Amino acid sequence: MSTRELHLNAFLMESGHHEASWRLPGSDPHAALDVGHYVRLAQIAEAARFDSVFLADGSVAMGTGEFRASGQLEPLTILTAIAAATSSIGLIATASTTYNEPYALARRFASVDHVSHGRAGWNIVTSATQEEAANFSLAERPLQATRYERADEFLDVAKKLWDSWADEHFVGDKANGAWGDPSKLRRVDHHGTHFQVAGPLNVPRPVQGYPLLVQAGASERGKAFAAKHAEAIFVAHQTLVQAQAFYAEMKQRAAAVGRDPAHVLVLPGLVPILGSTEAEALRLAQELEDLRIARYGLRQLAQYLEVAEDALDLDAPLPKAIVDQEVREGFDSRARLVIDLARRENLTVRQLLGRLGGGRGHNVVIGTPEQVADLMETWFAQGAADGFNVMGATLPSGLEAFVQSVVPILRERGLFRKEYAGSTLREHYGLPRPANQFDRAGVELAGAELV
Amino acid sequence: MSTRELHLNAFLMESGHHEASWRLPGSDPHAALDVGHYVRLAQIAEAARFDSVFLADGSVAMGTGEFRASGQLEPLTILTAIAAATSSIGLIATASTTYNEPYALARRFASVDHVSHGRAGWNIVTSATQEEAANFSLAERPLQATRYERADEFLDVAKKLWDSWADEHFVGDKANGAWGDPSKLRRVDHHGTHFQVAGPLNVPRPVQGYPLLVQAGASERGKAFAAKHAEAIFVAHQTLVQAQAFYAEMKQRAAAVGRDPAHVLVLPGLVPILGSTEAEALRLAQELEDLRIARYGLRQLAQYLEVAEDALDLDAPLPKAIVDQEVREGFDSRARLVIDLARRENLTVRQLLGRLGGGRGHNVVIGTPEQVADLMETWFAQGAADGFNVMGATLPSGLEAFVQSVVPILRERGLFRKEYAGSTLREHYGLPRPANQFDRAGVELAGAELV
Repeated sequence: MSTRELHLNAFLMESGHHEASWRLPGSDPHAALDVGHYVRLAQIAEAARFDSVFLADGSVAMGTGEFRASGQLEPLTILTAIAAATSSIGLIATASTTYNEPYALARRFASVDHVSHGRAGWNIVTSATQEEAANFSLAERPLQATRYERADEFLDVAKKLWDSWADEHFVGDKANGAWGDPSKLRRVDHHGTHFQVAGPLNVPRPVQGYPLLVQAGASERGKAFAAKHAEAIFVAHQTLVQAQAFYAEMKQRAAAVGRDPAHVLVLPGLVPILGSTEAEALRLAQELEDLRIARYGLRQLAQYLEVAEDALDLDAPLPKAIVDQEVREGFDSRARLVIDLARRENLTVRQLLGRLGGGRGHNVVIGTPEQVADLMETWFAQGAADGFNVMGATLPSGLEAFVQSVVPILRERGLFRKEYAGSTLREHYGLPRPANQFDRAGVELAGAELV
Repeated sequence: MSTRELHLNAFLMESGHHEASWRLPGSDPHAALDVGHYVRLAQIAEAARFDSVFLADGSVAMGTGEFRASGQLEPLTILTAIAAATSSIGLIATASTTYNEPYALARRFASVDHVSHGRAGWNIVTSATQEEAANFSLAERPLQATRYERADEFLDVAKKLWDSWADEHFVGDKANGAWGDPSKLRRVDHHGTHFQVAGPLNVPRPVQGYPLLVQAGASERGKAFAAKHAEAIFVAHQTLVQAQAFYAEMKQRAAAVGRDPAHVLVLPGLVPILGSTEAEALRLAQELEDLRIARYGLRQLAQYLEVAEDALDLDAPLPKAIVDQEVREGFDSRARLVIDLARRENLTVRQLLGRLGGGRGHNVVIGTPEQVADLMETWFAQGAADGFNVMGATLPSGLEAFVQSVVPILRERGLFRKEYAGSTLREHYGLPRPANQFDRAGVELAGAELV
């Protein structure tokens, strides 16, 4: 029997992933802006021995704040606060390659990795919206092709920078006055299309070598990028069949570029809405549904589809022109998922909004702990998942319910750890510490030389 | 009698400000890279009721690491870790307007201000060196004039962004489904020379309105910038007369641009080397001097002066061409200070390096606690300082010695607080929370409108 265990990430989001979660009697509507809320969530996840917590992000206010929180504190700041209040759980934050500079961002992730003793992860995104471009002095957002080209070069530069200050640089020889070994601090001298970076970085190589590299876009370009760089992939799937196809494709793509498929973990999103009976779970789902405000969902749907809100009729299916559009510059893979869902189940826009309200297209599973555990085991055993991105519809209550009722079942079935085996995020995910490219025999590094 | 009290900031730097501090028997040479070290220093300063701690920074490795630590963890990461381990002390970090974007940096400082409940401060710098430019895809560093022009516009944008999410935006009305009041989330629509920023920011206005704004360059442009924006000024002076002149000039400049001079605090740097007797203090100073490596200081001096190392002869005075150079693109005010010091005391380069080794041009005061307290009182009473930027030559020992021996004397003399009167950094410094520019009657904001 295999000892393969699944990996659990807790995707933290204000008072919950359901868009109306903040309106429940037990919810704190200010949770989005309260670092203490995020620290408590991380502590719950750590007590349950989750691999990691994760914060999504964008560099733009989320709408007008009329129907839902219009922002959140900057993710690496939250994760640093969490690092101080936890000891083992991994800490993954979204950061964009579109509006950051590699030197600054590589240093920040390295710093969080040091402060947390090897627990940092980076969900690498490109910034798709016109609204973000307008916050960074651009008249037009960069095209998807350009964004991914920059992202790819960004990763190359970041890895060179993380490798530039070798583990052996620090000496600390007081008698001879040798603080460091200059030969172990290497110039990067990257000369590329998007970046010219001399290096070396001014912080030591991360505890983990590189932070855990995560990716979450399932467009064609996103998948190519993930196959090359990602070690964990967050993805949204509505059906087992789609999840299996994606899983197989990503493992194959990773192998095709010479990587070990076991080092590319696929974690579909899962929004559990739990009750001790199915009826109880359905009541909670209905309570949330009743609190939903259609206009909020409509705005978000229009953004995914890159159309005006009034192009969508609540009581009609999605217009054919929208369904037929092949590729979008922005949320391409999310738009595909939404359109597939609407078409497969023949939904009106109003019905579609109901299906999306729980987790923006992620898989909402309403049922008993056994039913949720069964689904997880099926996906895990049948080649659809290496683990799950657990998205509490309500927080903290949805995470607490999952931890108290589903995790024990997974453990009984031998599917999830009882204790952490290692101390770093990479160890939780069973991933090696990457070798330093400057140390690899036979590797020619253009421009690499001593400072 | 006035109740005016002085303000104390602890300038944290690895194992101490003296360049050879890491070589002392009691020092930890790895301190530069240990967040725990910085947390302990901040706790020492907080226990003594200092106003704040401060971290300098640059986006470049510091030399080759041969003679001293070649980097430090990213400052806002360190300060966030400190925030979690302290409750009252202010947290000031250097960040550059040259290689950051206003949207991202304004958000980060706002986030640290929220996480720390109103304790964030920003030491605003421009990035002067060619080495930093080469880490940010620039072939040439921007000129000083351009850097300061960008810095000025950066501040305007940052203030607009901090004001864009008004305190009253959050509503949290569950019954009516109104999370926020959209009219209290304002577009910025900044259209300037260096930046085009739509806004609004995606985090609430900082607890303090704006983080405390600090400045530290004493070039002509630096002073003009400080007069306009700074609420606290860190500065290096070797003599009372120079400090008095600077103090008077900055208060006058602030008044000339319509600001209250009492809201521009001047804090000269002070490197105390303490002993219970003068002889004991001198022994410690000599011990540090004996551990100094001339080549390290020579490199740093050459960088300040923007010359090659071999342009400097250790046993001769500074060359006349260097002394006579009017303005430098990079470290203009620090170069001036160094040249003045060498000329005033007729020092050879070797002697000059000895004078700079303790604190890079800051005022090193070797003596008993009474002597140090006397100097502080004199500067404070005679119009040279509103407080001091206390720079332990060795850390933590130099800060501990100051706290244990000098602070009690200052308290006896009624010059320093026994307890914090407020909870925010601005309250410690006696500064008001700035009004929100969008709320000011009669202020026309170009392009300001509801989202």
